[in-house]
Amino acid sequence: MAGVVKPSIPKGTRDFGPVEMSRRNYIFDTIRSVFRRYGYMPIETPAQENLTTLLGKYGDEGDKLLFKILNSGDFLTAAGGPLNANSDKAALQISEKGLRYDLTVPFARYVVQHQSEIAFPFKRYQIQPVWRADRPQKGRYREFYQCDVDVVGSDSLLCEVELVQIVADVFKALGINVCLKINNRKILAGMAEAVGAPDKMTDITVAIDKLDKIGLENVNAELAEKGLSTEQISALQPILALQGNRQEKLNSLQQILTSEVGRKGIEEVSTLFGYIESLGLDLKVELDLTLARGLNYYTGAIFEVKALDTEIGSILGGGRYDNLTGIFGMPGLSGVGISFGADRIYDVMTRLELFPEAVGTTTDVLVANFGGDDELYALEVAAKLRREGLSVEVFPESAKMKKQMGYADRRGIRYVVLCGENERLAQNITLKDMLSSSQQTLSLSSAVEQIK
Amino acid sequence: MAGVVKPSIPKGTRDFGPVEMSRRNYIFDTIRSVFRRYGYMPIETPAQENLTTLLGKYGDEGDKLLFKILNSGDFLTAAGGPLNANSDKAALQISEKGLRYDLTVPFARYVVQHQSEIAFPFKRYQIQPVWRADRPQKGRYREFYQCDVDVVGSDSLLCEVELVQIVADVFKALGINVCLKINNRKILAGMAEAVGAPDKMTDITVAIDKLDKIGLENVNAELAEKGLSTEQISALQPILALQGNRQEKLNSLQQILTSEVGRKGIEEVSTLFGYIESLGLDLKVELDLTLARGLNYYTGAIFEVKALDTEIGSILGGGRYDNLTGIFGMPGLSGVGISFGADRIYDVMTRLELFPEAVGTTTDVLVANFGGDDELYALEVAAKLRREGLSVEVFPESAKMKKQMGYADRRGIRYVVLCGENERLAQNITLKDMLSSSQQTLSLSSAVEQIK
Repeated sequence: MAGVVKPSIPKGTRDFGPVEMSRRNYIFDTIRSVFRRYGYMPIETPAQENLTTLLGKYGDEGDKLLFKILNSGDFLTAAGGPLNANSDKAALQISEKGLRYDLTVPFARYVVQHQSEIAFPFKRYQIQPVWRADRPQKGRYREFYQCDVDVVGSDSLLCEVELVQIVADVFKALGINVCLKINNRKILAGMAEAVGAPDKMTDITVAIDKLDKIGLENVNAELAEKGLSTEQISALQPILALQGNRQEKLNSLQQILTSEVGRKGIEEVSTLFGYIESLGLDLKVELDLTLARGLNYYTGAIFEVKALDTEIGSILGGGRYDNLTGIFGMPGLSGVGISFGADRIYDVMTRLELFPEAVGTTTDVLVANFGGDDELYALEVAAKLRREGLSVEVFPESAKMKKQMGYADRRGIRYVVLCGENERLAQNITLKDMLSSSQQTLSLSSAVEQIK
Repeated sequence: MAGVVKPSIPKGTRDFGPVEMSRRNYIFDTIRSVFRRYGYMPIETPAQENLTTLLGKYGDEGDKLLFKILNSGDFLTAAGGPLNANSDKAALQISEKGLRYDLTVPFARYVVQHQSEIAFPFKRYQIQPVWRADRPQKGRYREFYQCDVDVVGSDSLLCEVELVQIVADVFKALGINVCLKINNRKILAGMAEAVGAPDKMTDITVAIDKLDKIGLENVNAELAEKGLSTEQISALQPILALQGNRQEKLNSLQQILTSEVGRKGIEEVSTLFGYIESLGLDLKVELDLTLARGLNYYTGAIFEVKALDTEIGSILGGGRYDNLTGIFGMPGLSGVGISFGADRIYDVMTRLELFPEAVGTTTDVLVANFGGDDELYALEVAAKLRREGLSVEVFPESAKMKKQMGYADRRGIRYVVLCGENERLAQNITLKDMLSSSQQTLSLSSAVEQIK
């Protein structure tokens, strides 16, 4: 056809067909039901936020990755003068709104805007897509879902404990074997203070992380490159030499971290692990002193989950932030939250074949269509089967049986009900099991029993 | 706080808090479960579509209402020359993507793009937000959800019958008293042909619609204004004089509509109503010859649903389109679908107080926090209650009882479990019923029985 463009979708975005949807919904439903069991309530925020809400919250790189919405109408005239030659600056003349980049900033905005309606501590979850103009690559998309669960308005460590319980429950329900890594931003700050380089917290954690891979000598060389003095590097050696299990490491740290913040971090981690052990959670949890995600953001606990049986980065991240709503003029509200990476969880479950058989299934029964008077009987049979809780299709045309069976086959529908003239007159049906290729004529109620 | 902007969201968009979310989910879940019962499968498409997919599909007005995404990066340089002074034209130089405007065009695009994976007839549903840069007003939003259910790849009227069954099931399940209005585009075309004014189909249906309100004389005057000749107006009089119940109207039309398309329309409507009567659906259905929605789009049946007990426009619309995928180069695929207006359904249910009590509820149980050793016991009690299927919160801090009770009260949580030292030592709990203000000390299993 002339002039017709082969349809496509923007790069980095995806269509989800029925099978993918059923599997994705299985993940979302599982996560959601655990959230609910712990008393978290759902909220949703608009896809578009004012750019004043979004800009400056994700760093310069984040600002660039925001999808901006062109103002409606005559945006050039409304720009109030010629456009700046710089695209970043011109964008702000012709765009006032952007697509949400994560669920955290909209949540902070929500809490401040609705503070008078909220009973604190506020426990909410939010499962919605976010958009980032990232370079698309394998496993990284420009539209993807986040599943966030947060509690704000309490600095009690019980909130962290509860999130750990949720992690245990969700991954147990999904059947994914995981390890939850925990660290604390205060310990990292304490380390940096202990070596006299409070601004080099990230470099120090990266160094600890690389120790196993590149060895002490190379780590020290790298630190020197990053600008740490010989003295600072020397002060770091006891930290790099940390050995043993969690308790032993914490004991050693207790000697090394003498600042208030460092000691507070050790205390928080010890308390959290104490609860985890007392509750006997069915979850592998470890202290990972190299865990440093979202450093400029978190102020206490830091969480990350990795799947154990396959190599797919992090499938969950989170932590405590002490002043999330401060950016919107409501200081002093501490919160802690985690975000489940639904896309990566999907990838893990697909790779390890963890989706239950029943997920992604199709219609229970196809009622074949013999046309004429039999058509109405087919509709009646279908209606009765639906009332029994089955999902039922009637083939819309009295096509050849081969075509109708072919449809059932392609859709993976196991049972086909045949009700032609004989069955209609006898007010029964013939049930064909596509799996065993057997068929028998029986009453509707017997058929229901067999199918269920 | 200096420099802090009071947070807000773009006009025409909304935040949904826990109560609204629970109610909205109740609507979506009800609709979804009916769709599933009829064998429709979910799909989702990206929020962003290429503008080539969207432009020209919704008329000039629609093109203006599309939200366009500013290209990422240095869009001015990539524009390949100075921007056109006309904003509409300049937009196309700096924007390649737009937010989806409805679910129908993305669905058509999906079918064409994935045709090799699809078993036809393809029965899909899709529940996602759409965006329109409409002037915001009461009940009209710039972001709102559509719930579409369509079958493509069959021109059998059984598809229409099934959609009518779905309408009946959904509104019965939601408890909304509705009337389904049905018309057929072919009848409207036949009328216009019969009066010799095939291009005046809309004016004619509007005229019929106004007959009751403004009277025959005024209607005829209006038609003359619209450019119908005296002859044409005279030829229309038998149609304006149509009287009686559905069958009587159809009988009269049979005399008036002599063109092939007109007769086909009458036959389709008669067949559809025949099935509806035979199936004995629990639904008020009427033939409405003035129904003319989406004329440039639909080719057969047209559907619209109104709630009967309150004045809130249409809460569902739909119809048959014979060449939806033709715009994307896949002609000859007939489809029929309906779209539930979730926002209006929400408004109807709110106004008529149709939401069940249990919807919008909160956590089942709050376990009060007495601190110290009792805290761990509270966590254990909560974990056990959750295993019984209850949703349970532990108050995260050992705050004053007044504060904890106030939280339960504000959240509308009915049961508060008190487990202090006495209860911990006796391994029981005290259950407070906030509704009756009574409390009793009992075993955990007795408490579960009482709560459930």
